[in-house]
Amino acid sequence: MTTFAVIMAGGAGTRFWPLSRRLRPKQLLSLLTERSLLVETIMRIAPSTVAHNRTLIVTGTHLEQSIDALVSDLGVRVIAEPMARNTAPCLGLAAAHVAHTDPTAVMAVLPADQFIRDVDTYRRVFHQAVTLAETGRIVTLGIRPTRPETGYGYIRRGGALDPTKIAYAVDAFVEKPDASTANRYLQDGRYDWNSGMFFLRADVALEAIRTHLPKLHDGLIDYRSALGTTDEKEALVRCFEHTEATSIDYGIMEKETDRVAVIPADIGWSDVGSWYTLLEFRESGQSNFTRGDVRVTESKDSVVISDGPFVAVHGVEGLSVVATADSVLVTPVDKAQDVGAIAKHLQIERKDLA
Amino acid sequence: MTTFAVIMAGGAGTRFWPLSRRLRPKQLLSLLTERSLLVETIMRIAPSTVAHNRTLIVTGTHLEQSIDALVSDLGVRVIAEPMARNTAPCLGLAAAHVAHTDPTAVMAVLPADQFIRDVDTYRRVFHQAVTLAETGRIVTLGIRPTRPETGYGYIRRGGALDPTKIAYAVDAFVEKPDASTANRYLQDGRYDWNSGMFFLRADVALEAIRTHLPKLHDGLIDYRSALGTTDEKEALVRCFEHTEATSIDYGIMEKETDRVAVIPADIGWSDVGSWYTLLEFRESGQSNFTRGDVRVTESKDSVVISDGPFVAVHGVEGLSVVATADSVLVTPVDKAQDVGAIAKHLQIERKDLA
Repeated sequence: MTTFAVIMAGGAGTRFWPLSRRLRPKQLLSLLTERSLLVETIMRIAPSTVAHNRTLIVTGTHLEQSIDALVSDLGVRVIAEPMARNTAPCLGLAAAHVAHTDPTAVMAVLPADQFIRDVDTYRRVFHQAVTLAETGRIVTLGIRPTRPETGYGYIRRGGALDPTKIAYAVDAFVEKPDASTANRYLQDGRYDWNSGMFFLRADVALEAIRTHLPKLHDGLIDYRSALGTTDEKEALVRCFEHTEATSIDYGIMEKETDRVAVIPADIGWSDVGSWYTLLEFRESGQSNFTRGDVRVTESKDSVVISDGPFVAVHGVEGLSVVATADSVLVTPVDKAQDVGAIAKHLQIERKDLA
Repeated sequence: MTTFAVIMAGGAGTRFWPLSRRLRPKQLLSLLTERSLLVETIMRIAPSTVAHNRTLIVTGTHLEQSIDALVSDLGVRVIAEPMARNTAPCLGLAAAHVAHTDPTAVMAVLPADQFIRDVDTYRRVFHQAVTLAETGRIVTLGIRPTRPETGYGYIRRGGALDPTKIAYAVDAFVEKPDASTANRYLQDGRYDWNSGMFFLRADVALEAIRTHLPKLHDGLIDYRSALGTTDEKEALVRCFEHTEATSIDYGIMEKETDRVAVIPADIGWSDVGSWYTLLEFRESGQSNFTRGDVRVTESKDSVVISDGPFVAVHGVEGLSVVATADSVLVTPVDKAQDVGAIAKHLQIERKDLA
């Protein structure tokens, strides 16, 4: 059976401002390697696991050109959503395309802006997930919590689905917890972080959409019949205009808990959620995370990045300093959650810098 | 009697990097007003106290052009020292020029990189100092200490020289003290900071140079006889090559204590010595000192300056963030004394940024 990769690259995160901008969101940044998180996501499974010509990138129209430029030599396909409608319509759009080729093909649906350190283990888990998805299951990857994180959704495991305990039934998807609940989850042992990566057949996806998101389903039927005609673009606009704007988790997964399986995956996963998370990626023996033309002295637990001016940082602790040619941000790493608010302020006051 | 202003503008301070550079030292920066510290020094006494055509700026050859550009429309004279030889030869060079016009003229010798907040009081003290210097005294301005500063030299007052106690004899010049000594000076009441501003007649200066710095004196004699001839430039090089390289304080003042008078001056003086000192110049009610295109939120006691990129600073305390088009420096304000070392490192490693 064939496997397609569907890479969701429409995100517009603001937490990496000033490196990230409206037209250069996190997935296009080279934060941890020389390649962007998007290209890392493609290359992590290519070409042996998923061929480039079975890789679809779904993004927004405002990013289509820059992503095309980034991946054009790989031969992957880029599909642009006509407007942002959360992730469920994104899944539907991809499923319509994949089903057009092979309705029973498995889709690996992957966020474009995560990082995975242990690629060998990831590829093994990837194959396990595909194999299980071929049976009609919706398979999600769970990440063993290492801290009482309040920024992620959690998955509570049920019983093992196989004697070797690779996969488990899902008791429940649970929302982002408060701090004390997150602590309880961490102790409990049955809770995994919801990685946002999941695997399902195209026909399973469309069937679930038909049941739970009927407007999206109608729009996709209309769109599929228009594929290859002059009405194709307009049909997609109609579909997105009238669809339910909801997430895959909320619109589909939580309503299909019975057929969802979770595979706990110890793969060195990070959502690369803020400057703070970059500290995890310090080179061994280094007190700080640094990138670009920077000089850091007598400092620790700090993140110093420049893709513009030379940056000298001296005598600080727990500080993030991020510089580009036109903007600099300085804030403690533990106030990283406020960066989004600063970027949003700039979207209003200083559109040139947003 | 005529008064000349001699403004010493050869300094090559590194403590304001990255705003200050080898070719744009502190005296050329507009740190506190829209004008550079050098131009503020000229305008503070001009034109009523000292006319522009009796103002001499002494600097190094590498700064001659940029200073000329800055002051050319004022009609002040710029003299370039052929090499850096500390301040005593600078005084000698100025005295040779002034004596050429009027040997008994008083010279007000003023560092180019200080700031004085209370200009009216300063002008009054200036006149008192000139009047006393006309009698043959060497008059220095002392600043009442407000903190146990270890970065300045001190002057210990002797008895009052007049019934109204405007000026005092000088008991001793004392070197930069350690912290406990500085605390003792602060308590004692007889110690003033050595402001580096002093007033003396040109003939008194040349006489003192003849006594204490004979090589400099010989060179100046040679130079004066060459003034206006084709040998003028070469004579100045010979003078500076062979002179004693020493400071005015050490080479002259400390050896002429008997004829030195100090006028304690409460004039809102600052040597603008580091980012830290800028905090004194916060606008009333402001928690931070800011300049340029910056946005500072939830922060205090911080200095944020940009003459390049937009700078956003959030959630910090006691931090200095200084940005230019090609360099950014981030360091706690209380580690301002380390900035010089960073700049010196760059003079070796990164000449383009020094």
